[in-house]
Amino acid sequence: MSRPPRVTPRPMSRPFNFSAGPAALPEPVLQQAAAEMLDWRGGGMGVMEMSHRGKAFTSIAEAAERDLRELLAVPPNFHILFMQGGGLAENAIVPMNLAGVPGGVGAVDLVVTGAWSEKSAAEAQRYADVAVAASTQAGGYTDLPPPATWRLRRNTRYVHLCSNETIHGVEFQELPDLPNLGCEAPLVVDASSHILSRPIDFSHVGLVFAGAQKNIGPAGLTIVVVREDLLDRAMPCCPSAFNYRLVAQANSMYNTPPTYSIYIAGLVFQWLKAEGGMPAMEQRALQRSALLYRTIDESGGFYVNRVARGVRSRMNIPFFLHDERLQDAFLEGAQAAGLLQLKGHKSLGGLRASLYNAMPLQGVQALVAYLNEFQRRHG
Amino acid sequence: MSRPPRVTPRPMSRPFNFSAGPAALPEPVLQQAAAEMLDWRGGGMGVMEMSHRGKAFTSIAEAAERDLRELLAVPPNFHILFMQGGGLAENAIVPMNLAGVPGGVGAVDLVVTGAWSEKSAAEAQRYADVAVAASTQAGGYTDLPPPATWRLRRNTRYVHLCSNETIHGVEFQELPDLPNLGCEAPLVVDASSHILSRPIDFSHVGLVFAGAQKNIGPAGLTIVVVREDLLDRAMPCCPSAFNYRLVAQANSMYNTPPTYSIYIAGLVFQWLKAEGGMPAMEQRALQRSALLYRTIDESGGFYVNRVARGVRSRMNIPFFLHDERLQDAFLEGAQAAGLLQLKGHKSLGGLRASLYNAMPLQGVQALVAYLNEFQRRHG
Repeated sequence: MSRPPRVTPRPMSRPFNFSAGPAALPEPVLQQAAAEMLDWRGGGMGVMEMSHRGKAFTSIAEAAERDLRELLAVPPNFHILFMQGGGLAENAIVPMNLAGVPGGVGAVDLVVTGAWSEKSAAEAQRYADVAVAASTQAGGYTDLPPPATWRLRRNTRYVHLCSNETIHGVEFQELPDLPNLGCEAPLVVDASSHILSRPIDFSHVGLVFAGAQKNIGPAGLTIVVVREDLLDRAMPCCPSAFNYRLVAQANSMYNTPPTYSIYIAGLVFQWLKAEGGMPAMEQRALQRSALLYRTIDESGGFYVNRVARGVRSRMNIPFFLHDERLQDAFLEGAQAAGLLQLKGHKSLGGLRASLYNAMPLQGVQALVAYLNEFQRRHG
Repeated sequence: MSRPPRVTPRPMSRPFNFSAGPAALPEPVLQQAAAEMLDWRGGGMGVMEMSHRGKAFTSIAEAAERDLRELLAVPPNFHILFMQGGGLAENAIVPMNLAGVPGGVGAVDLVVTGAWSEKSAAEAQRYADVAVAASTQAGGYTDLPPPATWRLRRNTRYVHLCSNETIHGVEFQELPDLPNLGCEAPLVVDASSHILSRPIDFSHVGLVFAGAQKNIGPAGLTIVVVREDLLDRAMPCCPSAFNYRLVAQANSMYNTPPTYSIYIAGLVFQWLKAEGGMPAMEQRALQRSALLYRTIDESGGFYVNRVARGVRSRMNIPFFLHDERLQDAFLEGAQAAGLLQLKGHKSLGGLRASLYNAMPLQGVQALVAYLNEFQRRHG
């Protein structure tokens, strides 16, 4: 005799979780995952227990791919790959797949605009002749370099940028048009921390990748969207399991894929479609971030965000207390008010609010109310 | 207002799932995961939503590591790493970490005893001077080569074997004592499909790895148990995210780890401890597999398993119908009887029953009853 799952009674409302990733997921997604844990659609197996090659899981993976393609309007000449390793592994997997030249080391140009593109540049040096096309490091990564100023080499195999820097909170509001800059190389975009918060113009890119654990779903899944003509450049040192051509040929089943993470991502994609897709997500992201930036900017310097207004991230908002000695009290009070994970990244200090798709406007309203109240008491 | 998860009523008993992986999980583990999906221990977050660096998830990861160390009696000079990529990726990650020699290509000796060690040998050739120390390919991988016959090179960086071949169904009943064979190199063991079904003698190994999706938990987690002195051999082409030293230094948090998979694995480890640990698991594995092998062997040739008796796997049992034309009828009837995923791997054909820790003896009894009944009707 088997019993139904014992469901812990939930608090009246869950706290608001501002984690930069792994991050909050939409409640309906978690509800459905809990309900289907032991038995997916009457087949007598949970999703975690299914062979990745069986009909049930194949249908789950195909639906996830189809829904993601629809949500982002991915053109037919791009493959969607479900891979593993997250952004840090992809920093190596991208050059292993794209930087190779026969009998030598290929050139790779990177635009460095924060901690994540810095890491990408450092890792690419294992596999390529790396040059920094532009960097905003001298200004503390508070602005973005205009594409017209980028130094792009004729022989570069690709140009890499991070379209939203999770730690420094800068976001490209549009992707550069490389051919217009005289560069024929493909653009590689690390979109980990803002994918699915806005449309992507695929006419401007060769490859987009994203670790899932910020705006998609569980950690352990990496999504790669890659143009067909870029699949056959892998260097000999590239592991088969990370070779884009082999993964694409096998519909992401060359290796056993992270099946449960794909299932959860698929539920998130269904939720996104039901909520209105990219137009709705972009609108909400603008609304959430505008509210928080306005509160910070109108605090008379009590709270500070140093990022130039035109490039501020809609997803990750680092900010500082004018008086840093108040930080512990701020975080303690926030926790007590049900506002979780507001501590800034250790490399930057201060505070950070990540406002991904799963964050309701009420969460930002609650945060803003707390910011105002804290300032009243300590300002 | 939030509601508790809607739980789908479960069938009176779940079917028995003989998948080779991803595979059945213990019901109490799935029950607990469903109950905690939206709220882990009253903190207001599900495990998927937790920052991997927060206190809550850190405690989950530490408990998982501690329980695995206890279950397998892992000595203190071995690190337990939670990684990504599965067995196929690890086939590259192991040589990238261990095969390097200054300014050249290291030697690696492999024992080839089935489809998985074949793949390991092919992949290692990207990074090393590979030699096959012994192979049972000529005999169709139905036996294992006695260690005394292995041709081990003096300069080999390590010796690789697969201790349980998931497809061919052969299992090492004990690990070779390499120093006794005059070999000082470390032994690398791919234990993916039988880890945690029996003790491991760590005095005989340098590194054990296992994809989690067979006998541990969800796909997307790879467990690596590696001796301290082997951490600093990585080749320059090894991605940082897969560098054993960097991963060990960061307690498997160099990259964002597959957090939910680690949580599920941790629940499985707790279940294993509660059920009696390795002695109980080994006893049950012997009981389950003996029952099935006996039924096959006593069928008068109606069912056939070709593996030599002393090396038969307790976990993965490939078998064939004497009359292969009956196969479709066999599989249809099995499905109707609630016996799922019995089709053999495509490379070998025939049938296969995988009997991992989560398979109750009743499942094998039901399978044996079906085998006997099917033979009565078609024999």
